[in-house]
Amino acid sequence: MHFTSEQRLDDGVVERAFTLGDIPGILWTPASASASAPVPLILLGHPALGLGTMYPRLAGRARQAAADGFASATIELPGSGDRPRWPVLDQARAELRRVMTAGEPVSEEIIDALVLPLVEKSVPEWQAAMDALLSLPEIGGPVGYSGGVISIGVRLAAVDPRIVAAALFAGSFVPRAIVEEARGVTVPLHVLLQWDDEGNDRQASLELFDAFGSKEKSLHANMGGHRGVPQFAGDVAAQFFTRHLK
Amino acid sequence: MHFTSEQRLDDGVVERAFTLGDIPGILWTPASASASAPVPLILLGHPALGLGTMYPRLAGRARQAAADGFASATIELPGSGDRPRWPVLDQARAELRRVMTAGEPVSEEIIDALVLPLVEKSVPEWQAAMDALLSLPEIGGPVGYSGGVISIGVRLAAVDPRIVAAALFAGSFVPRAIVEEARGVTVPLHVLLQWDDEGNDRQASLELFDAFGSKEKSLHANMGGHRGVPQFAGDVAAQFFTRHLK
Repeated sequence: MHFTSEQRLDDGVVERAFTLGDIPGILWTPASASASAPVPLILLGHPALGLGTMYPRLAGRARQAAADGFASATIELPGSGDRPRWPVLDQARAELRRVMTAGEPVSEEIIDALVLPLVEKSVPEWQAAMDALLSLPEIGGPVGYSGGVISIGVRLAAVDPRIVAAALFAGSFVPRAIVEEARGVTVPLHVLLQWDDEGNDRQASLELFDAFGSKEKSLHANMGGHRGVPQFAGDVAAQFFTRHLK
Repeated sequence: MHFTSEQRLDDGVVERAFTLGDIPGILWTPASASASAPVPLILLGHPALGLGTMYPRLAGRARQAAADGFASATIELPGSGDRPRWPVLDQARAELRRVMTAGEPVSEEIIDALVLPLVEKSVPEWQAAMDALLSLPEIGGPVGYSGGVISIGVRLAAVDPRIVAAALFAGSFVPRAIVEEARGVTVPLHVLLQWDDEGNDRQASLELFDAFGSKEKSLHANMGGHRGVPQFAGDVAAQFFTRHLK
């Protein structure tokens, strides 16, 4: 992992851009983090829109995490942002757009083609990022995963024991295979659902929530569309991480 | 309203038993409440098991409310506790027990017979209690409703503009007519659902949540049975009232 830039935000948070091989990422650490007082880490998941587009929302979440005493980090998803185009993903997206424009139902095949390759490729990348981040003296763990793509969060929580809690955003299509994997997730979960999310299948989200094997799981459904998550829902998610990462 | 006893709990909360006509009730006020600093009021709803049985849980909720700066009050439901038996309710309960024991489905007729008379009779009683409680110099409003019976909370929120927010516990049967009334509820809502509540129809609860007309409504589903609401869910509900009653 190579740091490529560093700036101090006005609330004392240190923001560092890095590359991990050819994957760009960003790390935010609170002013308090040091080798003698290492802090837990929250991985900030996000939709595959590119870190540039997502930056303002990610930085807002990172500042909240820092205020709560957590480092947070994110990496670019394959095929997004400044990373090379990925024909597999481009083709799946084109097919999704085609059926949605035609008003046809989104089949399980389309969902699988869109999401499964992304999960397959990005989960090992998030794990490599965890390896690198946890080797920094100012970051001590444990690790939480926050946000979407929810299928990436499910797979990570199912396969990597370093993830001890996850706040997942149910805002994207979920393949059947991932619902099955959810049964193997046992860490505490906080699931956010936008009740009227125009691009999301509410019933599928409820089924996914039901499938999780975790003894502690909470579903928090709020009004509004995909981007309308109310401020207080963010506060409740922050309390979830404070309960489980401290 | 006549006060029949008064005691100071060890955290400074004043607990007063009262009667309103022939209806027993309890009022809890924080140490800070006075004529010059009147406090908002939370009505503590509860299942029809009698105030004696419910007292420990109600007192716990009242202490939390007092710690947040709210008075809270409850009244006995018709046909429960020390109030005269109510054959209509006894008969409906006997019928419910019969079909559940026989493993028959609980029909809409049985739900209507069990819940609608209770709503019809108790909602005006809660309103009379509000009249009396809001006339006390140390209670200033606004008023929130908290808990179950959820159908009582729905009707109260639909008909009485003094209720400005409600935290409802989706843990009891809901008649179709009440789901329709829910469309007319517009105040902020916080709905608690126990995902594996053995005595509750999850799908019916989700439909009720969907029906509410409120722009701000949140569904909080947690693991565990009817009485397994986790402590942190109570904390989140308390924050809801702090946002809306202060």
